[in-house]
Amino acid sequence: MNMLPVGATIGILGGGQLGRMLSLAAAELGFDVHIYEPEADCPAGRVSARCVTAAWDDLDALADFASRVDVLTFEFENIPIASLNHVSARKPLRPSVKSLELTKDRLHEKHFINSLGIDTAPFWPVASHAELIRAIEALGKNGILKTREFGYDGKGQIRVTPGTDLQALADELDGQRWIYEGLVDFACEVSVILARTEGGDIAVFDVTRNVHRQGILHTSTVPAQIGEALMGLAVSYATQIAHNLEHIGVLAVEFFVTKHGAIIVNEIAPRVHNSGHWTQDGCNVCQFQQHIRAVAGWPLGDATRHAKQIVMTNLIGEAVNTYPKFAGETGTFLHLYGKRSTREGRKMGHFNQILG
Amino acid sequence: MNMLPVGATIGILGGGQLGRMLSLAAAELGFDVHIYEPEADCPAGRVSARCVTAAWDDLDALADFASRVDVLTFEFENIPIASLNHVSARKPLRPSVKSLELTKDRLHEKHFINSLGIDTAPFWPVASHAELIRAIEALGKNGILKTREFGYDGKGQIRVTPGTDLQALADELDGQRWIYEGLVDFACEVSVILARTEGGDIAVFDVTRNVHRQGILHTSTVPAQIGEALMGLAVSYATQIAHNLEHIGVLAVEFFVTKHGAIIVNEIAPRVHNSGHWTQDGCNVCQFQQHIRAVAGWPLGDATRHAKQIVMTNLIGEAVNTYPKFAGETGTFLHLYGKRSTREGRKMGHFNQILG
Repeated sequence: MNMLPVGATIGILGGGQLGRMLSLAAAELGFDVHIYEPEADCPAGRVSARCVTAAWDDLDALADFASRVDVLTFEFENIPIASLNHVSARKPLRPSVKSLELTKDRLHEKHFINSLGIDTAPFWPVASHAELIRAIEALGKNGILKTREFGYDGKGQIRVTPGTDLQALADELDGQRWIYEGLVDFACEVSVILARTEGGDIAVFDVTRNVHRQGILHTSTVPAQIGEALMGLAVSYATQIAHNLEHIGVLAVEFFVTKHGAIIVNEIAPRVHNSGHWTQDGCNVCQFQQHIRAVAGWPLGDATRHAKQIVMTNLIGEAVNTYPKFAGETGTFLHLYGKRSTREGRKMGHFNQILG
Repeated sequence: MNMLPVGATIGILGGGQLGRMLSLAAAELGFDVHIYEPEADCPAGRVSARCVTAAWDDLDALADFASRVDVLTFEFENIPIASLNHVSARKPLRPSVKSLELTKDRLHEKHFINSLGIDTAPFWPVASHAELIRAIEALGKNGILKTREFGYDGKGQIRVTPGTDLQALADELDGQRWIYEGLVDFACEVSVILARTEGGDIAVFDVTRNVHRQGILHTSTVPAQIGEALMGLAVSYATQIAHNLEHIGVLAVEFFVTKHGAIIVNEIAPRVHNSGHWTQDGCNVCQFQQHIRAVAGWPLGDATRHAKQIVMTNLIGEAVNTYPKFAGETGTFLHLYGKRSTREGRKMGHFNQILG
């Protein structure tokens, strides 16, 4: 793959904050960006050369979009595979459909991870009352039902306890495809963000420790302070996953660390990730520029962390209105997404704080 | 002045690379940007929410542009004062017309600087053969003729030596307004980039040492290594100039250091400046975000340099094609402007290198 020349156009499928930050990173390197996004007036469209508002299944619009760019990528994983195949038949799509196919369905994702000899939480596919009963018999009465697809920020998850009315729950499932996950003795969550080139070069950012609130990422802190051995294991698993996906671009792997000191994969995001936002102010090259570099066939940048300790905090919903408090704070770096409306649970911005 | 809220729109007059980098900085803070630029398909327009292509003297287009933004600024100083007055009657213009009026004409600029008790090169206004003769009698046969307005990157400058045919030169001047500057015993050039808020807060970046080639900035290096005393003087002069202009936003002051250890002002740029590009990778907050903060009525960010030594090198004309050489270099940060055509002497990009 040759280096995409300056002035070339990168097409990004998805126009949310990740697309916006990818656009800004692409602009620094002299690229034009086109955005494809079903919602009008999206955050990324306002910092890009062109923005197409069309549905994910509008094959004509997708083909036209692909015809005007040099390479394609995505910031969002809930894009129909048929749509991705449609554009990737026309222009290089990086990462390829494979990265998405193996990660967008929790069942396929867990099978893929286990096939590499890497642990996940115990799981059981569920689409009926009978299957739910079997899953609970196998994995215990404490667990989490998760939709196989389209879940994010805690959406599509139901906590199951010994007191749960299983018949009512099964009625609610209504033939949809779920998986039941047995509970793990959760100590903390960490994630590994890395970038991989087509040629197989990998650059790994430092392991991040993540704290959620109401199912949504609240803070990411580096260093993760889980010990060298576990960090090494997390990096080696993430690297193995990236190579096996033949992934091109940034990839995020979320892990649970258990109280017994084991590490298991929670999920894979085949894209730039909220828990990598600290790299914008803590590293020589951030996750967004790394992704653009990989997609453009450029060598990866230096992922070294220069901040001793850094904490990323999300500004969710109305919390965004606290930004004036941080605007003048030394060592605090605000990143706001310019979203037109504030909704509960909506990611509106974040800030990175360098400590020590 | 209240803090401009996130989601507000900043109008930038001028759509070159400075406008582009201002747009990117504004986007990080959640602002929308509109660009006004006479040339179509400009670098800044492709990273902004809206781009108007219209002439500097199109008062209707300017009024319409102003009506759609919350605050205005400029990245380019050769805008007719009448046009600036036209927009500033409609929306706040930061910096105000005063900063431009006192700096766009070299004669007014030098009078202003001298009025503050700060030295410049000796100068003499010239618009005829007789005035040229008088200027040379007063300041010597070695000097530089400079157009009073519209000069940049060495354009509009003629070196005069004892062998120059003064009659031919005077014919060439053709009634235009020039100034004749006597030569100084030049040792080096340094510049000070600072930002000032409406309330008079100032944040100063470290003094930069600049090297030119063919009249165009080639490198800027920090630290400037001219000694604490001269650096202190440069900062104090730049601060005095900013306060006297009641400047809002980033201001650059170029100085000549003489072989006798004096420091004189060469010129003032009432805007973000090429010699401040190193701040993008060497400081906590770069000159572009500082300018946006000042224009938006936000507190200034922390201008502290975190890089021990940093060198900015411009990529001029065909030199931009060397970028693949730097793309994979650790400690080197590329910034490319996405200009559609490469011309001799045209600024196409730059890179910052952190040393030591």
